[in-house]
Order: sequence, then structure tokens, then C-alpha cells
Amino acid sequence: MSGWLCIAGLGPGDPNLVTPEVTLTLEAATDVVGYIPYVARIAPRAGLRLHPSDNRVELDRARAAIDMAAQGRRVVVVSSGDPGVFAMASAVFEALENRPEWQALDIRVLPGITAMLAAAASAGAPLGHDFCAINLSDNLKPAALIEARVRAAAGADFAMAFYNPRSASRPHTFGRVLDILRDTCGPDRLISFARAVSTPEEKLRTVTLAEATPEMADMRTVVIVGNSATRRVGRFVYTPRSAL
Amino acid sequence: MSGWLCIAGLGPGDPNLVTPEVTLTLEAATDVVGYIPYVARIAPRAGLRLHPSDNRVELDRARAAIDMAAQGRRVVVVSSGDPGVFAMASAVFEALENRPEWQALDIRVLPGITAMLAAAASAGAPLGHDFCAINLSDNLKPAALIEARVRAAAGADFAMAFYNPRSASRPHTFGRVLDILRDTCGPDRLISFARAVSTPEEKLRTVTLAEATPEMADMRTVVIVGNSATRRVGRFVYTPRSAL
Repeated sequence: MSGWLCIAGLGPGDPNLVTPEVTLTLEAATDVVGYIPYVARIAPRAGLRLHPSDNRVELDRARAAIDMAAQGRRVVVVSSGDPGVFAMASAVFEALENRPEWQALDIRVLPGITAMLAAAASAGAPLGHDFCAINLSDNLKPAALIEARVRAAAGADFAMAFYNPRSASRPHTFGRVLDILRDTCGPDRLISFARAVSTPEEKLRTVTLAEATPEMADMRTVVIVGNSATRRVGRFVYTPRSAL
Repeated sequence: MSGWLCIAGLGPGDPNLVTPEVTLTLEAATDVVGYIPYVARIAPRAGLRLHPSDNRVELDRARAAIDMAAQGRRVVVVSSGDPGVFAMASAVFEALENRPEWQALDIRVLPGITAMLAAAASAGAPLGHDFCAINLSDNLKPAALIEARVRAAAGADFAMAFYNPRSASRPHTFGRVLDILRDTCGPDRLISFARAVSTPEEKLRTVTLAEATPEMADMRTVVIVGNSATRRVGRFVYTPRSAL
């Protein structure tokens, strides 16, 4: 039996947002690897080994998954959302980089519904025109680069989605980003905070930049900032298709 | 019986990339509205009316769908990919804007796998760091704005995904975009062309900007440009998580 490795996206939380491709792949797997709360979403069954691990050990987890596949096991690395958006796919390829003997393995990435698109759908259509996705965590990049990208995106009038806006270990980054946004986009620009989107705890709130405070976001929140044309219609927020 | 309207994403083509949420909603629908090739993906059944319409009549289609829901029908507007990414959700909210009597309708947007994420998964993980999505069609925005956004994104070292890169009616836009990219990113930057992703006709090709030509893209292609750290590993292309 030859092993394989799939890096799969579980979507934002609702089981009805998991693609059939991912469900079928999980049914064929012998091993599931991932961050504790994501592995907890997989139903246990006979013949399936679950390997939950802690946050911030992405490379170790990736190497362990590749090792198991190389030994003939059928391994799924699970991510929340989409595995290619601030998630495990890049970590797996990083682990492969220095191990050419692993590169012939049967490896596939299975896309998923990423949080910003579920959040946008819940709000209406705030990403209906050109947009950027920016990870606000400064674990893996300098804060100055984050700020430069926010300025560039605001200056070119992109809508924006922010992942990992705020954590206990870096409470100030998001406040600075809000300051930059108020400076470049003005006080009336709409900003939506979508927490735990598609789960029973989902909470969605849209305010202006003048009203926005850092405390409106936490690590389970995706933040969406509209472009200069983004507006409310009824209970929804949307960005027009046209910029003419 | 009260009507409702769902704007649903069918994903890029593979039936196994349609979410169960969308499948269940289609099973409950009385009417499906959309662009001809997307409605053609819906299996006919008794009690389901299919309303295919041509391209570039998005607002008329949105109004017709809203009208039917207001009359008590259960209507699904189908888009390829995700309905909130260069697709029908914004058109529906635009149609709602001047009709307050419609805004109390039961309306929901159901996310889908958008083409750039399926293309990225097929290529590896080229969008594994901050990225932008830009629609290169100049039907609804000036070419100068497209070029300014590409320059801003390249200047801030975002990876980029381009939708609708090239059509017979505007053969020159994409050539200009490639010139801008070569100018700002240099000749060695990786660019992937993903055509008809997730369908039997899928074709994926990664080259450098020096090798890229406009003819590598058509309207069924999503183009992904890496950031300055994007590189090959084996048969894959990936963007590292770290910018430190």
C-alpha cells in the first residue's frame, strides 16, 4: 500500500461548509494531524489515528505528517478554513524543501472555505471588488511590513480582510492598524468584525472606523474593511462591482 | 409559503467542491437563476425551474430573482466559485439598493470555493502569505485603476491573483499588466496560469515573468503571481509563511 498526504481545509466551522472532497478523503485516511481544536472536529472511528498538536509547532507537525506518509500511511493534515491561506500548506512545503527524497510523495492540497469569504457572505458582499488578505500576526513578519501593506492597500483603495487581528501577546498591533486606516480612509469607512463565523457563537458587527475599537477583535475574529464605495443596504454591507 | 433568495457559489467546477450547504439549498429551491454555463451545472428535476441568462445582464438577472422571491418562490442565484468574489452577490445588493420594500426579504449568501484558492491548491501554496485579488476586466473600472492597483500590490510585495485576465474584447490589458510586473518584480518572479481548474480540462503551468506571454491566459484562466519569496519545491510552488 502506498501512502499519501493531503493538506485539507475544514472550512470555518459549520460541517455543511466542509467540501465532499475533504469528507471523502478523511474517510480514506489512516491518520489525521493538526492543531488541537481542528483535529477535535474529526469524528473518531476504528482504524483512524488522531494526532492533535499545539499551536506554533507547524513545522514539526508537517515533518511528522510527511514521515507517516513516507511510511505508507494515508495522512490528512487538517487546517481551519483553506489550507493555503495562513494555514498548514506552506508549512508542509517548507518541510519538504530540504528533503528531496520526500518530494516524489503523493501530496495534494484540498481547498476549503476560508474565513474571510464566510464572513463576507454573512455580512453581504464587502469583498465584491478588488481586495487584499493580510495576516496581522507579527510572529512571522515585522510589524513595519504589516503597516506598510495596510497603507499600500488603503492607498490603492482595496477592500481588506485581516486574519489574526489581535492576541494577548500583541495587543497593540491592531490599534495601530486602526489608526493607519482612519488616517488613510477617513472616519466613515465601514469595518465589519466577524467572530466565530458559521458556528453557533457567530457574532457579526459593522461599524464605522470612527466607532471601531481594538477590543472589537480577538483571535477568532476576521475583520473586513470596505473600499471607498462600500455601503450599507438594509441589514447588509456590500461593495459595488463598478469603480467607474 | 414565504419566499427566499440565496446567492450561492458552485465552486470552480468539480462537483466534489460544492458545499453541502449549497447542495441542500438547491434541493429546497423552486427556481435557479444564473449565467448559462453555471445553470447548466444544476441537474433538472420536477418542480425546479431553471432560468439561464446571458453574460453582462447581471442587474436584470438580480432583479428577476428578487421579484420571484418576493412572490413567494425559493430562488437560488448561482455563481461559479464564490458569489462574493467578482460574482453575483454584489449585483443582487445593487438591485436591492433602490427598492427598500425588498430589503426585508429572506436573503442569504452561501460561500463557495473561489477559483484562486482552487488554483493555489493545485499549484501548491502560492498564496500562503499576504495576497491581493484583482479583477483585470475593465468593463466596470478604468484601466488606469487596474494598473495602479497592480503597482501598489507589487510595491508592497503582496502575492496576487488575477481574475478575468484576458478576453477577445480587451486583448491588451494583460500584456500591460505583465509589463508592469516585470518592471516592479523583476524577470525571475514566478507566475502560474491555472485554466479550468478542478475540471477535466484543468491545465496548470508555472513560468517566470521573463517567460510569461499574454497568450498563456484566457477568460477561463486564473493567474497567480508570487511574492519575492515564492519558490518551487519539487513540482509545487509555495510562498513561505515567514517574511522575517
